[in-house]
Amino acid sequence: MYEEIKQKAYEANMLLYKYGIAPFTWGNASECDRENRVFAIKPSGVPYEELTPEMMVIVDFSGKKIDGALSPSSDTPTHAVLYSSFPEIGGVVHTHSVNAVAFAQAGAAIPALGTTHADFCYGAVPCTRELTKAEVDSEYEKNTGLVIAEYFHETNTDENAVPAVLVKSHGPFCWGKNAKAAAYNAAVLEIVAEMALKTARIRNDVPSIPQHLLDKHYLRKHGKNAYYGQSKKD
Amino acid sequence: MYEEIKQKAYEANMLLYKYGIAPFTWGNASECDRENRVFAIKPSGVPYEELTPEMMVIVDFSGKKIDGALSPSSDTPTHAVLYSSFPEIGGVVHTHSVNAVAFAQAGAAIPALGTTHADFCYGAVPCTRELTKAEVDSEYEKNTGLVIAEYFHETNTDENAVPAVLVKSHGPFCWGKNAKAAAYNAAVLEIVAEMALKTARIRNDVPSIPQHLLDKHYLRKHGKNAYYGQSKKD
Amino acid sequence: MYEEIKQKAYEANMLLYKYGIAPFTWGNASECDRENRVFAIKPSGVPYEELTPEMMVIVDFSGKKIDGALSPSSDTPTHAVLYSSFPEIGGVVHTHSVNAVAFAQAGAAIPALGTTHADFCYGAVPCTRELTKAEVDSEYEKNTGLVIAEYFHETNTDENAVPAVLVKSHGPFCWGKNAKAAAYNAAVLEIVAEMALKTARIRNDVPSIPQHLLDKHYLRKHGKNAYYGQSKKD
Amino acid sequence: MYEEIKQKAYEANMLLYKYGIAPFTWGNASECDRENRVFAIKPSGVPYEELTPEMMVIVDFSGKKIDGALSPSSDTPTHAVLYSSFPEIGGVVHTHSVNAVAFAQAGAAIPALGTTHADFCYGAVPCTRELTKAEVDSEYEKNTGLVIAEYFHETNTDENAVPAVLVKSHGPFCWGKNAKAAAYNAAVLEIVAEMALKTARIRNDVPSIPQHLLDKHYLRKHGKNAYYGQSKKD
Repeated sequence: MYEEIKQKAYEANMLLYKYGIAPFTWGNASECDRENRVFAIKPSGVPYEELTPEMMVIVDFSGKKIDGALSPSSDTPTHAVLYSSFPEIGGVVHTHSVNAVAFAQAGAAIPALGTTHADFCYGAVPCTRELTKAEVDSEYEKNTGLVIAEYFHETNTDENAVPAVLVKSHGPFCWGKNAKAAAYNAAVLEIVAEMALKTARIRNDVPSIPQHLLDKHYLRKHGKNAYYGQSKKD
Repeated sequence: MYEEIKQKAYEANMLLYKYGIAPFTWGNASECDRENRVFAIKPSGVPYEELTPEMMVIVDFSGKKIDGALSPSSDTPTHAVLYSSFPEIGGVVHTHSVNAVAFAQAGAAIPALGTTHADFCYGAVPCTRELTKAEVDSEYEKNTGLVIAEYFHETNTDENAVPAVLVKSHGPFCWGKNAKAAAYNAAVLEIVAEMALKTARIRNDVPSIPQHLLDKHYLRKHGKNAYYGQSKKD
Repeated sequence: MYEEIKQKAYEANMLLYKYGIAPFTWGNASECDRENRVFAIKPSGVPYEELTPEMMVIVDFSGKKIDGALSPSSDTPTHAVLYSSFPEIGGVVHTHSVNAVAFAQAGAAIPALGTTHADFCYGAVPCTRELTKAEVDSEYEKNTGLVIAEYFHETNTDENAVPAVLVKSHGPFCWGKNAKAAAYNAAVLEIVAEMALKTARIRNDVPSIPQHLLDKHYLRKHGKNAYYGQSKKD
Repeated sequence: MYEEIKQKAYEANMLLYKYGIAPFTWGNASECDRENRVFAIKPSGVPYEELTPEMMVIVDFSGKKIDGALSPSSDTPTHAVLYSSFPEIGGVVHTHSVNAVAFAQAGAAIPALGTTHADFCYGAVPCTRELTKAEVDSEYEKNTGLVIAEYFHETNTDENAVPAVLVKSHGPFCWGKNAKAAAYNAAVLEIVAEMALKTARIRNDVPSIPQHLLDKHYLRKHGKNAYYGQSKKD
């Protein structure tokens, strides 16, 4: 009965592999079935070359395994919290892509320096606070999700307009309307991270792009009057 | 009747894909038919893997669609202005290649630091001014073209000798005698941008190359006495 | 009689090639048979494209060739010392991967700045002291191994938890329970070296990750209560 | 009658393509026949994908074409001067590889910072002086060769031990006992240039490697007592 989300989760995981943003087994994608409050996620530690749709594991929003022969990704509780906290998202992706991780390790947000960034994200990609020792020692992966949600709620950031975050000292989590969109966002994040890093090498005091340009680019792709692509809504 | 320019525009778009300078759908190439004052351009948001020559859209110099089932690239009005403003060019290309975008985001020209640069461009690749809020809010893509043309006209820069520009906070537009030449220039631009960025890491006060060396390299490939390649004129 | 370790050494050498961390012939992997105190290692200077399992050379822990038609890697005495000094390791790998070599040339350890690093190594990847003129002039490759072992013994570093080192002015040596694990560690080392280099470009005073986060990530993959992957112990 | 050197020059040119160090048509390799004082070189401006052994052009040491239907590389006079000036070399290669060009544009030598460098070159890869206006305006390519030779003669540098040079504001020329060895040196040069650039990012005052380590590594591969590889002499 979970065949459709297993297939979609599988395809998104293979996109991470194709995009080269999840070396070895360091990445995972999940696809959500909101009606049944479950999601399909990559099994832990299985190389992408060996993955099949049947291997995907079904988990509910509390992080409990519902279906599947294998153990789910160790990051599963983070995915579960994100689905609980962000009511409109349908896919979550985690990677260790190099440039995005560099910003996470530096504890720095990725500023919106140009239209490539504005096309996918409405403002900077934020970096969370460090988790406390207590948060790490017990229910670490669940607390990772809670620290992400805390950031978005406390700063009143709209997770549907900012579909990515850097977990301090760790790396990026991305999301979207489905797993495929989340995988796309993870790939774009890596590119804009590289662009931001190189921009700062040329001039180290580059301001964020003007608000009107951020609005223009984000909204021509994502607003209700979007005019990019072959349909009015992307 | 537009089969020839559709085919050429298609081939140039596929070159962007082959060169790896237009990730996802972020790039577009067009081929111009000057006699009929129309050009063939990539449809908006279609992945390169799915592109066919028949999908190319025919547009006139005012930016109006003349032929084709799909919507043209959202950057079409920029192409139209460039064909109107630069009377000898026959192809236009836009990409989001990483190193060129880094210079655009920094608002910095790419200086002519060596012969690789001089072989394709007679002097620095300039960066435009920022568009105003009014220019962004209304007819943004057309104004992008006008701001490019403004730079070349006000600084008396010869667009045939400087076949590329960086639009501030956005990225590069390149052109040439046809779409294939414009795609080549876009690929070279990305390489010289990377070289310039790395040169500045080694020594941050490198002057532009001497005028006589710029002349020599540019003219041995492009002047009427050019002697590079198998014919006298390239 | 050495077919099994020859096959495993061959496969690990081909992994170096696949991972792109050993350009040309600059890398070698060996697999150890502890019972017989011998190891199988790549022959010297043979391109990976031409390698076969039969070409692997069998050497004892004193560095003496026991079996094989070809000369063993010039780094063989270093491997021999590492097997003698580190009683639990079963595979050794040497590469000239670019980012790891950059740290070795700078004489700098690779700090543990994030969870990607903590997942494979319990703390910084150290850099040895420079070898003296006497150590270079006589039995250079053996002394390279001795300087590595000296570092681990004098600083009381556990080689099973820190499976990599940078030899000053030279490059990385890695190890693991077998040659395949050592090759994996060499590939991860190159990735975390690139991440560390880029992190310092964003902010140059980034501290190492907190001890509790280092513990958490290292132990969830390597401790006796490890819960990453499909079995309790990785 | 020149079939053998045409074949070897062709194969070396294709190696440049395989190694990715000569984008588009920006590179050329030649193979010398010392007995007849001629060399075979790539034709000018022909893409590597279209190259055949028959297209190679035969030129004598004065730079005069002896055989071949096509025009030789525009850099032919530089090759001719190098064969005249360096009596033991049998192959010459020119590329525009990115990291080596960055050093050439910065007017900086590539210091010998580690054993990867010492394995191929006995000391820093030097950078020539800038050519004067007169040298550029007349017989530019020939003067490029003369400025290279001038550097080696005036500084008493042994071209057989330092098989590469950076021409200021231009890029690298490399050589070796034949075209294949020159192509290998050009590929290694690009790797050590990247390593040197990254080393300086980690620590900007790294000294060259100690003389005894330079001696050891260079001589274990190139001296009469060389012991790297499968024969005593490499």
